[in-house]
Amino acid sequence: MFRDFTQVLDCAKKLETKDLVVANPEDKSILIAINDAFEMGLIRPVLVGDRLRILDLLMELGIRKEGYEIYNASSYEEAALVSVKLVSKHENAILMKGQLQSSVLLKEVLDKDHGLTTGNLLSHIGVIDIPSYHKLLFITDSVMNILPSEEQKIEILKNTFKFVNSLGIFIPKIALISAIEVVNNNIPSTVEAKNIVDKLKDNEGYYIGGPFSVDVAISHESAKTKGVNHVVAGDADVLIFPNIESANTFYKSTTFLANGTPVGLLLGASNPIVLTSRSDSYKSKLYSIALAVVSTDIIC
Amino acid sequence: MFRDFTQVLDCAKKLETKDLVVANPEDKSILIAINDAFEMGLIRPVLVGDRLRILDLLMELGIRKEGYEIYNASSYEEAALVSVKLVSKHENAILMKGQLQSSVLLKEVLDKDHGLTTGNLLSHIGVIDIPSYHKLLFITDSVMNILPSEEQKIEILKNTFKFVNSLGIFIPKIALISAIEVVNNNIPSTVEAKNIVDKLKDNEGYYIGGPFSVDVAISHESAKTKGVNHVVAGDADVLIFPNIESANTFYKSTTFLANGTPVGLLLGASNPIVLTSRSDSYKSKLYSIALAVVSTDIIC
Repeated sequence: MFRDFTQVLDCAKKLETKDLVVANPEDKSILIAINDAFEMGLIRPVLVGDRLRILDLLMELGIRKEGYEIYNASSYEEAALVSVKLVSKHENAILMKGQLQSSVLLKEVLDKDHGLTTGNLLSHIGVIDIPSYHKLLFITDSVMNILPSEEQKIEILKNTFKFVNSLGIFIPKIALISAIEVVNNNIPSTVEAKNIVDKLKDNEGYYIGGPFSVDVAISHESAKTKGVNHVVAGDADVLIFPNIESANTFYKSTTFLANGTPVGLLLGASNPIVLTSRSDSYKSKLYSIALAVVSTDIIC
Repeated sequence: MFRDFTQVLDCAKKLETKDLVVANPEDKSILIAINDAFEMGLIRPVLVGDRLRILDLLMELGIRKEGYEIYNASSYEEAALVSVKLVSKHENAILMKGQLQSSVLLKEVLDKDHGLTTGNLLSHIGVIDIPSYHKLLFITDSVMNILPSEEQKIEILKNTFKFVNSLGIFIPKIALISAIEVVNNNIPSTVEAKNIVDKLKDNEGYYIGGPFSVDVAISHESAKTKGVNHVVAGDADVLIFPNIESANTFYKSTTFLANGTPVGLLLGASNPIVLTSRSDSYKSKLYSIALAVVSTDIIC
């Protein structure tokens, strides 16, 4: 089990080097993160974008172009198309979004002819290293699925389970979040959480509980005060939120007010997809790459 | 402007003493908070509940009963009825929920014959002192209103504005929260935020902005990275959330992961109503009383 991202990075260094295909990497913080991952032996960089601009930026940063594979693309659309085609040829290759809109990249990802679809729902996983929590926390979905239905939440849960399992969290503790920890017919998210828990509680791969308020999911003390006695309560690995606003609120409030470091990937495609955000730090970008590397390989 | 709750407490000490009517105070942490507030001159305690049990608990805690007004009530329902009737007679009296269900107390609060209704929507205000934020943050609604409509959000905003204004925050900065900071028709909360801002932006009492993600509302750096140039961005006093799950997520994640101290009141009634939660600390309860005292008086 990973307690923080430095452990993820240490693990990634021990694994086989992966191809990292980056659509439009024309940004200094992305290029520094890629080059650090390259020098650590995590990835082989495959860059797709404005070739001359990329070469200029590499020179400006004092990065030698040896070992870099660079494909020219004259538009965001072309960079997305070429990147996705390159990734689709290699089971272990990783796709990374650079300076283009997510929607442009996703259009090609979802293309049935050359894309990375598997028939699964795509979902975003946010992984946050919060100093005041005792392990990495996985949260979903703060980016892709706005108001997932009960069925979609189960799809999201399956994507997430497969991912955390690949990271060596063998029996993850999954919490379905709402505003309160009891079923209240006036709050649909509590009813849905109860239904999902009833459907999935007999599985053998994970522990699942809910509805839980956030405090019940992450604090043993709060769970005790509220009389919630459940193996997931106070020790959750995964928080599944009822809507994009609550997931995003958790992601942002822990990052900006609890000194958290967040990382983000898209799940449900045939290959991991690193989705960096404009407000993410260089470190978040490096850790995102490391996490994608670890998830494509056996555990350390 | 209050930067933390010790300033609120210092202010409350300078103001006129208020009547604090507590329904079912049969709990040690509540009685300690009430007695501290009494000894500081903030309030005159009026307790309604099981008289013998209350006297026993006071004795056990070493608290002298002088200065305490105690009414016997033989059930939660009776305690709620008597408490609300007592409060309704005094403009400046404060109602506090003790060890009874909120719904039992609210039934009497909302009774048109003897209650505390004003025709306004009741809404909850959470006030959180977060060490990593530069001032007190007011958030709504994490308790009462589950999925407020556009009109209800405006009611909530008005309750909140009146309250923060009474605390001396004369031109508060109000942010309407969603998951992103642009209007996207697929995310209804962004559209509603835009509509509300358009309706209310010409007022002279407050600054209002949105839709904002939480990071844009509270971090100048994030607002800058995302190109949001607005007086509210990075410096919000009030966060109005689109649903109870996102508001509650902010409340709980900052309390449990960012070392926040939360306080809660109900707004929209004729008198302030202190709503303590089972997981609130003794300090949260004392600060809740102080905040209610300050809001009923002129500012320090």
